Amino acid sequence: MSLSLYQSSVPVFEHAMGAFLAVLDKAEAHAKARKFDSANYLAIRLAPDMFPLARQIQTFCDQAKNASFRLAGGAAPPIEDKEKTIDELRARIETTIGLLKTIDAGAVDAAVDREIVFPVGPNKMKMQGANYLLHFVLPQFYFHLTTAYDILRSAGVEIGKRDFLGAVPGIAPA
Amino acid sequence: MSLSLYQSSVPVFEHAMGAFLAVLDKAEAHAKARKFDSANYLAIRLAPDMFPLARQIQTFCDQAKNASFRLAGGAAPPIEDKEKTIDELRARIETTIGLLKTIDAGAVDAAVDREIVFPVGPNKMKMQGANYLLHFVLPQFYFHLTTAYDILRSAGVEIGKRDFLGAVPGIAPA
Repeated sequence: MSLSLYQSSVPVFEHAMGAFLAVLDKAEAHAKARKFDSANYLAIRLAPDMFPLARQIQTFCDQAKNASFRLAGGAAPPIEDKEKTIDELRARIETTIGLLKTIDAGAVDAAVDREIVFPVGPNKMKMQGANYLLHFVLPQFYFHLTTAYDILRSAGVEIGKRDFLGAVPGIAPA
Repeated sequence: MSLSLYQSSVPVFEHAMGAFLAVLDKAEAHAKARKFDSANYLAIRLAPDMFPLARQIQTFCDQAKNASFRLAGGAAPPIEDKEKTIDELRARIETTIGLLKTIDAGAVDAAVDREIVFPVGPNKMKMQGANYLLHFVLPQFYFHLTTAYDILRSAGVEIGKRDFLGAVPGIAPA
């Protein structure tokens, strides 16, 4: 009668990032219909001192990747931030999902009470695995994922919360 | 070696909404410094067909409240959406946190495999408790919480991700 740490992390990231691929498809369709270069989206920001779309996407990908590998007791392969098009951002998400599929569920589950060490700027911090996921990783993952959505939504792309959620696993008419 | 459903829901909502109270304090300070009525924030939207700030806050409060009571096997007391000021929105969040503190942890923990029935628009849907929290409630809670943050951030309030996260429970220098 409890949740596994794996169940609460890796498949959650995979599902949410998979849904965001479809959000990017709608962004590209909107650009095509309005006849502008979809690469124009990448530099859009909600405020001049916030990350632009590209960096929001790179950041939620790295949150998911780095946290999942740390929970599994390893180190994530670094990915260079060099995407210049929506297609390249889509590939970044797909690469990240592919890496998540290599994660050993049992290794993640064993991290509930383990101390996780991670960088915060120039410092090294530590948290117990469960708190790390619930109070550090998930809030930041959704923070950047939602802000990426909000950038595209405010730019006129026809998306709604259903696109953000994707095909919710296990939902059925009651 | 696992997470409880309670640990993964109620205290997560309480912490994140508590952090948002401090975000609202900064929004009020900004309004005071710039000499405008802080109630002006409530109608700001990132797009003309998105919810404004007030509705984003009402929605994340209700997501947390309704989901927590449903997981505990009960029904949440309804709260009317009538807030007209930042102070009233702060009180809405505080009332919600107060209601969450009445939730029985054991009742929530027992819901991992239970079927949760909930309305989606005019329909009734069902999900197993764990999936309901991980793939329906938490994404939507953070969706509205982050969008409320993004509205204030794009309106010039001096907030950063640290304000969004609050004082992360259990973090320490490594």
